[in-house]
Amino acid sequence: MTGRDGGADIGPIGEFDPVVILVRPQLGENIGTTARAMANGGLFHLRLVAPRDGWPQERAWSASSGAHRILDAATVYPTVDEAVADLHHVFATCPRPRHIIKPIMTARGAASELRVHAMRGLRCGLLFGPERAGLDNEDMARADTLIRYPLNPDFMSLNLAQAVLVMAYEWFLTEDTTLPRELMTNETQIATKGDLENFMTHLLRELDDSGFLHNEQKRPGMVRNLRHFFTRGEVTEQELRTLHGVVSELVRARKAGRTPKP
Amino acid sequence: MTGRDGGADIGPIGEFDPVVILVRPQLGENIGTTARAMANGGLFHLRLVAPRDGWPQERAWSASSGAHRILDAATVYPTVDEAVADLHHVFATCPRPRHIIKPIMTARGAASELRVHAMRGLRCGLLFGPERAGLDNEDMARADTLIRYPLNPDFMSLNLAQAVLVMAYEWFLTEDTTLPRELMTNETQIATKGDLENFMTHLLRELDDSGFLHNEQKRPGMVRNLRHFFTRGEVTEQELRTLHGVVSELVRARKAGRTPKP
Repeated sequence: MTGRDGGADIGPIGEFDPVVILVRPQLGENIGTTARAMANGGLFHLRLVAPRDGWPQERAWSASSGAHRILDAATVYPTVDEAVADLHHVFATCPRPRHIIKPIMTARGAASELRVHAMRGLRCGLLFGPERAGLDNEDMARADTLIRYPLNPDFMSLNLAQAVLVMAYEWFLTEDTTLPRELMTNETQIATKGDLENFMTHLLRELDDSGFLHNEQKRPGMVRNLRHFFTRGEVTEQELRTLHGVVSELVRARKAGRTPKP
Repeated sequence: MTGRDGGADIGPIGEFDPVVILVRPQLGENIGTTARAMANGGLFHLRLVAPRDGWPQERAWSASSGAHRILDAATVYPTVDEAVADLHHVFATCPRPRHIIKPIMTARGAASELRVHAMRGLRCGLLFGPERAGLDNEDMARADTLIRYPLNPDFMSLNLAQAVLVMAYEWFLTEDTTLPRELMTNETQIATKGDLENFMTHLLRELDDSGFLHNEQKRPGMVRNLRHFFTRGEVTEQELRTLHGVVSELVRARKAGRTPKP
């Protein structure tokens, strides 16, 4: 399934999901890469305030990596006031606010607020300023809340699409339930401790047989070390089958007198 | 203070901070925007494996927004094996791992692990694949752990610098202590409840005097509503001074008979 302009089908749109508002954007290409970053994080509502080179601009579509649906549906306003008139809350991204008395939140904190507002059926907007200059004081006076990213204070230069990506990523995470760690296994399962013990039994039998564990004093420590090694990671059933094969094959080679010298 | 190539001074470098390793990157411009994204999140160690167009490339420096120090110090290796030889742990970013049995983490989970390893004095590397193609199976076999970003599964197209930015941002957050919400105030303080009460007293005295609160039955509810309104946000001392002025001035205008009709 593709969008009406040949773009990708880019996921479900929530009516109350935040609106990204680019204020006086300069380059069509940056509008396109912004749409791409929005699609990455599942933000689909785009508004443009007085784009410098007019609208539509072909370069936006070509820079969007297929996020056409967002650009096709983008709307244009002459002023920030008109762009936010139907919204309930406005957030403004702003790296260095000065002489302003206003709540300020991190990207993560703001994303959490945006999710809460969306669940209450309130429409929120995110203002992003023009390349280089950023939002001016009049723009920021339209915002309820400022957002400041925790990033290297010695190097705050973020391009427009990157600034949008950070908010889009944090927005997506507010609903994400991916575990912070899992084992990627394809067509196999984590082995049980019983499976692992069967392998240890196989291995130790052959090691005893070969004479590797002949020192009775050292044997318990050596066995424990081997057990530690094979227990450290999550071993899969497939890996255990391979390890059984490795042991059997080495034994077979030794018994046939073909063991290479150490 | 500026870097030796005219770039910005971009913050302190930690010896055990993660190393970003670009595997077979194609465009010099993308190496530059990657350096910029690294600087944003406080990552400074860059290695390049077999960059397609050789190294150095002028376009990298011009696209880096001043992150020259990272590019100046970047080192080049012919293979992934050589690029990771001195590292203790290798993470690989990989949107769609297939037929692989390996731990997989979110960007946030991996950032937390990277911080722990750095604090233990272990060197970690982050592998990023070439534009479009991504890492191949041989590259991924060099990694201990895969990283998969939680992002819109219907639109996973991330450019190289954006992929690096997400990890750099999460890396920076592992040490960040910014409060998720604060009030940005410049040269003023949040007013105490006593300050606010002084204002309420001033306001109510004048409203009583003007007759606005003459209905004795409705008065308590009206006063309570006003108090709710003025209590909802954090009011600053400066705002209270302004509000005192507003009330005094409206009273003066009314008493002088200059109140505009409602």
